[in-house]
Amino acid sequence: MPRMTILTETDLRKIVRLDLDAIACVESAFEALATKAVAMPPILRLDIPEYRGEVDVKTAYIPGVEGFAIKISPGFFDNPKLGLPSVNGMMMLLNSRTGLVEALLLDNGYLTDVRTAAAGAVAAKHLARADATIAAIFGAGVQARLQLEALALVRPIREARIWARDPQKARQTAEELQARLGIDVKVESDAASAVRGADIIITTTPASEPVLRAEWLEPGQHITAMGSDAEHKNEIDPAIIAKAEPYIADRLSQTRCLGELHHAIAAGLIAPDAHFAELGDIISGKATGRSSPQAITLADLTGTGVQDTAIASLACERAKRAQIGTDFES
Amino acid sequence: MPRMTILTETDLRKIVRLDLDAIACVESAFEALATKAVAMPPILRLDIPEYRGEVDVKTAYIPGVEGFAIKISPGFFDNPKLGLPSVNGMMMLLNSRTGLVEALLLDNGYLTDVRTAAAGAVAAKHLARADATIAAIFGAGVQARLQLEALALVRPIREARIWARDPQKARQTAEELQARLGIDVKVESDAASAVRGADIIITTTPASEPVLRAEWLEPGQHITAMGSDAEHKNEIDPAIIAKAEPYIADRLSQTRCLGELHHAIAAGLIAPDAHFAELGDIISGKATGRSSPQAITLADLTGTGVQDTAIASLACERAKRAQIGTDFES
Repeated sequence: MPRMTILTETDLRKIVRLDLDAIACVESAFEALATKAVAMPPILRLDIPEYRGEVDVKTAYIPGVEGFAIKISPGFFDNPKLGLPSVNGMMMLLNSRTGLVEALLLDNGYLTDVRTAAAGAVAAKHLARADATIAAIFGAGVQARLQLEALALVRPIREARIWARDPQKARQTAEELQARLGIDVKVESDAASAVRGADIIITTTPASEPVLRAEWLEPGQHITAMGSDAEHKNEIDPAIIAKAEPYIADRLSQTRCLGELHHAIAAGLIAPDAHFAELGDIISGKATGRSSPQAITLADLTGTGVQDTAIASLACERAKRAQIGTDFES
Repeated sequence: MPRMTILTETDLRKIVRLDLDAIACVESAFEALATKAVAMPPILRLDIPEYRGEVDVKTAYIPGVEGFAIKISPGFFDNPKLGLPSVNGMMMLLNSRTGLVEALLLDNGYLTDVRTAAAGAVAAKHLARADATIAAIFGAGVQARLQLEALALVRPIREARIWARDPQKARQTAEELQARLGIDVKVESDAASAVRGADIIITTTPASEPVLRAEWLEPGQHITAMGSDAEHKNEIDPAIIAKAEPYIADRLSQTRCLGELHHAIAAGLIAPDAHFAELGDIISGKATGRSSPQAITLADLTGTGVQDTAIASLACERAKRAQIGTDFES
């Protein structure tokens, strides 16, 4: 009977943290996507509209990596009414050579949170000005917190502004982040004011109408839009896509239908087949990122299977080394 | 922390068998597919050609059913060289209302074997003549065995012929089936002879060239082709698709690209958008099956997510009732 290791969220929180290692791990994954024969099929998506539920399944095989992850990400948006989190999920790590399940990572979405925030840091590292010190965060959820935390690992952030629809949540998030990161974090009730003078803007909302307007932007700003991962989601004024230099996708085939690019195409501002570099192209030097301190750069992140394979592989290596986890015979 | 139940293959073999209950369960799933607003997205497929590996992920939500399955099916065809089975896998059952993982079914492909064989029985029940007594089975693997076993539950089979490329395997399978089912099972070294006088022909091979020729067929025969679940697989002479009345798909959108229909379309014998009834349409009475004792009927089965949801739900209900399984907190 095959044996596998089961890792719980508690196990995983002990061995994987949002740190420079996690960022390097996700950076390598994007580099592989641009330079190796990665197999990353389109996302499988199941919708259950009567319960405002959706499930995404992502996977990717990276040549040379011993295992590949399959990730199940359910989002059920009526769950908070039942006292349950909206988002949870799990990953599996399969052996690349035999297809056998080597580990079940019962992370309740924790590893996704980490790899998603790490991708934001990778985007900022390669596109934002090196002297960026002021961040504006749109949203006040888990990713608002983690994106700022990750950003502070790659840029010398000393001030952050939080803008969110719910001022109460914004206040709480700002207080937590100020205590956690030891930098000045304040709530900004006006989105345009939050953007004024910011070096980096990160949007982390589930908005279906743009929350960031083109006319607010100033030369030299970098924007990471990471909220949209579905057709109807839209955080960024489509005019920003047209004026960004460069606009970068995590995966172009995904941002064309699930990301901010999708809405710029729908608005007729961008041709459906227009080519843009991907984050991995910048990392590997196949394409250039920021061309000048005045350029406005934009990274459109929808979440990719290579990030899951990378973070799950890191978690399993560390679990093995630390002898953490429960062995299970199926 | 969320709790889930882990069921191993040993657990699952105790509570789910290939019997009339399993057949009824799969029959209801196909009926639901034809009559309810089932959500069944296209199969996610990852290929790892350097290890002759492939992974399919299937899912389906059936309104009114409390849980939905997500199934991971890896097939790694160099595994036998390593002393491992080619096919394994697992299922998860998620709560339809909350998306929480309720059970992990570590079945190593056992439930897939059962639900696949059960679908063959459902097809025969609705398309083969009621007086069918002679079966010809192409192939000598797990499904060759299980398809005949399932068929014998719905038709008064008294004789079976096994044809397979490997005569040794065919002999072993025939001996096993004869002992198990108590009917006359013989090896037939010539495929055309196996078909002669048979009432039902079931093809269970991974062939990529037709193994069943149109000119061998006789009036009144029913064919179930269940081997093809990928673009390159092809068991049935495309001319048979054109002459079958009726040709039935398990899921037309799948057989058009993964089933036998795919090759008939490629050969120009069938229009790419030609409409055919699905198995669920016959079960629910929306379409008619066999029109006369002389008709040659054909069911093209590629495997569907509703079958997985149905069998996983059955397994979990029974496990709960029998208090089988290991509770695990993530």
